[in-house]
Formats: sequence, structure tokens, C-alpha cells
Amino acid sequence: MAKRPTIHDVAAAAGVSRGTVSRVLNDDRYVSPAAHAAVRRAIAETGYIVNRNARSLVTQRTGSVVMALSEPHEKLFEDPNYSVLIRTAIRRLAERDVSLVMMLAGDEGDRERVLRYVRGGHADGVFLVSTHGGDALVDGLVDAKVPLVAQGAVIGRENVIPYAAADDREGARQMARHLVERGRRKVATITGPMDTPGGIQRLEGFADVLGRKASKRLIEHGDWTRLSGESAMARLLERTPDLDAVFVASDLMAAGALATLRAAGRRVPEDVAVGGFDDSSVAASTHPPLTTIRQPLAQVAEETVRLLLELIDGTGHVDPVILPTRLIVREST
Amino acid sequence: MAKRPTIHDVAAAAGVSRGTVSRVLNDDRYVSPAAHAAVRRAIAETGYIVNRNARSLVTQRTGSVVMALSEPHEKLFEDPNYSVLIRTAIRRLAERDVSLVMMLAGDEGDRERVLRYVRGGHADGVFLVSTHGGDALVDGLVDAKVPLVAQGAVIGRENVIPYAAADDREGARQMARHLVERGRRKVATITGPMDTPGGIQRLEGFADVLGRKASKRLIEHGDWTRLSGESAMARLLERTPDLDAVFVASDLMAAGALATLRAAGRRVPEDVAVGGFDDSSVAASTHPPLTTIRQPLAQVAEETVRLLLELIDGTGHVDPVILPTRLIVREST
Repeated sequence: MAKRPTIHDVAAAAGVSRGTVSRVLNDDRYVSPAAHAAVRRAIAETGYIVNRNARSLVTQRTGSVVMALSEPHEKLFEDPNYSVLIRTAIRRLAERDVSLVMMLAGDEGDRERVLRYVRGGHADGVFLVSTHGGDALVDGLVDAKVPLVAQGAVIGRENVIPYAAADDREGARQMARHLVERGRRKVATITGPMDTPGGIQRLEGFADVLGRKASKRLIEHGDWTRLSGESAMARLLERTPDLDAVFVASDLMAAGALATLRAAGRRVPEDVAVGGFDDSSVAASTHPPLTTIRQPLAQVAEETVRLLLELIDGTGHVDPVILPTRLIVREST
Repeated sequence: MAKRPTIHDVAAAAGVSRGTVSRVLNDDRYVSPAAHAAVRRAIAETGYIVNRNARSLVTQRTGSVVMALSEPHEKLFEDPNYSVLIRTAIRRLAERDVSLVMMLAGDEGDRERVLRYVRGGHADGVFLVSTHGGDALVDGLVDAKVPLVAQGAVIGRENVIPYAAADDREGARQMARHLVERGRRKVATITGPMDTPGGIQRLEGFADVLGRKASKRLIEHGDWTRLSGESAMARLLERTPDLDAVFVASDLMAAGALATLRAAGRRVPEDVAVGGFDDSSVAASTHPPLTTIRQPLAQVAEETVRLLLELIDGTGHVDPVILPTRLIVREST
């Protein structure tokens, strides 16, 4: 059997030094395009297999990144958005032969353990998901100078932590305009938590369109769960029984709001039009199917992974990536 | 401000050596009960804070374990059983200040990355979930001699890898007896994959009770997903249109079977009685609510974690822990 080709064989075939091959393998920028091309050609010719174990000896990399999920355990499995994020991130990282290790960071103890784990050198970077403003884990990770990105802006850290996100504010405007165009006059909203970008910006977009009509009486807050949508809708109905539309800042909360409206004998959309946000798997399965704002979550995950890999490679930047949303009209409006 | 107490202060207060304090902190068995008590008292008196970073320098431990989930990505979020397993394991490990890092091991590339990660020394042990027989990851982990446990037996490795599980075979017998007692004469079954203990043992329990009536015509196989329950039910109806009961080896597959029966115009339970297995959150939300076998999944997770911590501490054994199941009668039988 032929000997397995080594990095020396690649260097010889490419006519470059072993160090240059190593730099190409590690995506070092200080390699000329010509040398880069020669090495890639030599890798293909020799059949050299990149061995990440060997690479990690050189680079001190672990070949893995942590996805820190800052939600209580019970929320994680309720919301189909997480499934999309995780699947997409795993697939993208796998293309670079990098592992995704998931850690929950839903309470203080969890967050300390994540920080300790990362500080212990067990990951090359961290992908924050659903991080709320003022999270101590964020401060710890920033201090540790570990490559760090977020899905959605981290409030107060927008200029420090690169992120990818949907255009939450414009998405909310799209829905508010749609409800107004449908002739609705008393349009309420159920927001997400006000220490998350989705909570803040979707309310801002709503207020951009409704202007002075977006009174406090027509605003209630949820925590992204279905149950919080149910109870926020009940509070809105009690305070403003003649509301004729509601923009709910997530599909899952909208499913809860629909249940409350049904229990209260309101017809959707005849009496009350309901708009969601996400276009997750929940939206198509509600009764009636939900008009919503599609956010390109898989693409958000892909871009976030890209930002993280660039940071790890030393070529990163902190410009956020904002992706467009789209109105999807179904039967609830 | 007072100086933070050190391990030396604890040793002095307890009247023992620093080495003894270290052994107590690391749950070493070779410490006398008296010394153990003295050290614990001294820790309380001095206000010493156990620092796992410092400990890991002594013990070479990372303070974390990997949960390897051997299912395709899309299944993980569909099945509520995983949520229970993960939440329980995290809570139990947190009591020992150990992190759970989750890795998907659904395809060959994922499994290689898990193995590399564990071999890289980034975890103190591995908790296998939904591992199928003949999985190359298992061989690699056994060879690496890393502390290793499983939720459910690993086929072919029952005597090597400690596990906790529900009594699948007896649970299936309970359901089969219930269907027979309901006067059903043509009882079919939809099994799980036949390279998983739940697939094999639930079919064995079914056959224990039905005896020669459990003919091949009445047996179909699924892969634990809802969709596989739908299609297996369709195949059974086509082959044996006069069946009057079906035992489905998971609630999620049973939900799929119910959809097929409804689409085929069969009333449940009048025409066909349907029994599930798990008593997960799916069971109570089907139409009609599902008669099922409750398996104590949280307890299974707790026992599996206990087995793993004992292995890591060097006090483990390979005797499996088998937990009893219970029939829960709802409206589908």
C-alpha cells in the first residue's frame, strides 16, 4: 500500500515550504494568492488529508465552538426557531470540520459554567443565542477576549460583538402597515422582552407606523413563550375590549394569543386580525393559519457562523449583517 | 477586606494536611470518615470556596461531560423525550457543578468530531443518548477508555457500558395485556428501529403476550418519528384492514398512526384501539388522548448521570438500572 501523503509531500509538489502549506491550511492571510492556489492544487494531486488533530497541535485550536443558549431549559424545546438555528449552524461548521457544542446558559450557575468552560480553553469561539442585555456571561466572555458573535444584537454591546439578525424594525413596520391597510383602527401589540433586540425593535417598528395611535393601553409584553402570549392577550382584551387587530412579536406568542381570543369568543380575522413574526413551523399550523413576517433564520445562522469563523481566523470585523424580512399573508388578517 | 480563605486555612482549621483536604474535595474514597467530617466542618467555618479551576489543575478534570445525541438533527426537536432527558441531566450535573455540553452525533462526520473532541481531553465523560447498535462512535469511545454511560442499553455493548432504562419489555407486555383485555382480537404493532433496545424489547414484550397471534402481517417498523408512524399505519391497514388494535412503540409515532386512521375513516377507539409508549407531552394532546405506558424518563436520566459521575470518580460499575413502567389509560383504547 502506498504511504499516506504528508505535509512534506504537499510542500514538495507545490514547490513551497512546509510553513507555507501550514499557513494555507490555517487560512492565514499572509500567503500570496499564487502560493495559495499552488498548495490547494498540490493537496488535490497528492490526496493529502487535512488532519485537524495535527493542525490543533500547531494552532492550539480545539476544532469546536460553543453555542450558548441563554434561555431557561423549558423554552428551548418549545420554540421551533432554535431547531433551525442549531441545525444550520451545525451544518455550516461541519463544512469546516468544526464541532458545535451546545451549552444552556439559562441561569446564573449555567452561565458561570459556560464561562469557566470557555476560559478553560475547550472552545475556539462562542456563538451567543437569545442573549439578554446585562448578561454577566457576556462581560466575562468579552474580558476573556474569546472570539464571540451573537445571533441578534447584544443590547449595549452592539459595537463590540458582531452579529447577524433579521431587520426586526422594518419587519414590524411591514406588519403594522398591513394591518392598517386592512382597515383596522385599534391595533394592539404584544412585544418580546424589552431587554432583547427583537423585543425593542419590533415595538419601534410598530410605533413608526402607528404613531400616536400606539398608546400604552395597546401595548403588552411577553417573554416569547406561548403562555405569555395567552396572558398578554387576556390583559389587552380586558383593558381595550374593542381592539380589532394585534401584532404579536413571535409566532409562538401569537399561537397563545389566538387561543385566548378563541376562548373569549372573538373571531379571527373577522373581529380581531392577528399578525405574527418569524414564519416558523408554528405559523402554518395555527387555526386559522397565521399571517406573519418571515425572517430568514437559516441565513441569519449562516452569517453568524461566518462572522465567528472569520474572527477565529483573525480576519473578523464588527459590522453587523442585517437581513431583510417579508410579509406572508395567510388567513388570520 | 479579609483575605479570601485558602486550602491551607482549611487544612489548618481541620488539623489535617493539605493533601487530605484535596482528597476530600475530589471525593477520593481513601479518606477516613472522621477526616472527611473535619474537612467539611473546616470548609464551612473558614468560608472556603471550592474553585473548580484550581481543582482541575490537580485532577486534570474539565468539569464537563458530553451528551452525544445519536439522532439526525431534525428528530431532536420533534420528540419531547429529549427535552426531559436534557433538562434533568443538566439539573443533576449542576448540583455537582459539572457542565453538560451537548453534541449531535447524527451522521458519520458528527460522530468523528465527537470522538475527536473527547479524545482531545475536553470532557470527563460521555452520556450516550439514542445510540444504535454498531455505532462506530461507541467503539472509539470504548477504545479511548473514557467514562461512558448510556440512556438505554447499547446493543452488543450491554456488559461494557453501564446504562439506565425503563423496563421496555414489561411495559410492552402491560400494553399488550390491556389491549387483549379490552377484547381486541387482531392486535398489530408498530415498533421502533430494530437496532435500538426500545425497538427490540418492546416487540419482545408484545410477542410475549400475543404469542402466535403476533404474526409478521401484524408487525411494522418505524424510526421513532411521527411521519414513520403515519406510513407504518398505512402499510398495516393495507395488509390487514380488519385489525382492531395497534400498539405503537412511541407516543410520537402513535400520533402519526392516529392521523392515518382518521384519514382512513377509522374511529378510535371504536374501530381501532391505539396504545402508545412514553407518556410524553404528546400523549395528552392527541385526539383522542392516548392510552400509553409511562416510562420514568427523568429518573432514567438521573440514574444515568449518577452512573457517569461514579465512573468519573472511579467508583462505577456496569450493572444496569432498570426502572418500572406503568399503564396510563386515556381515551384511545
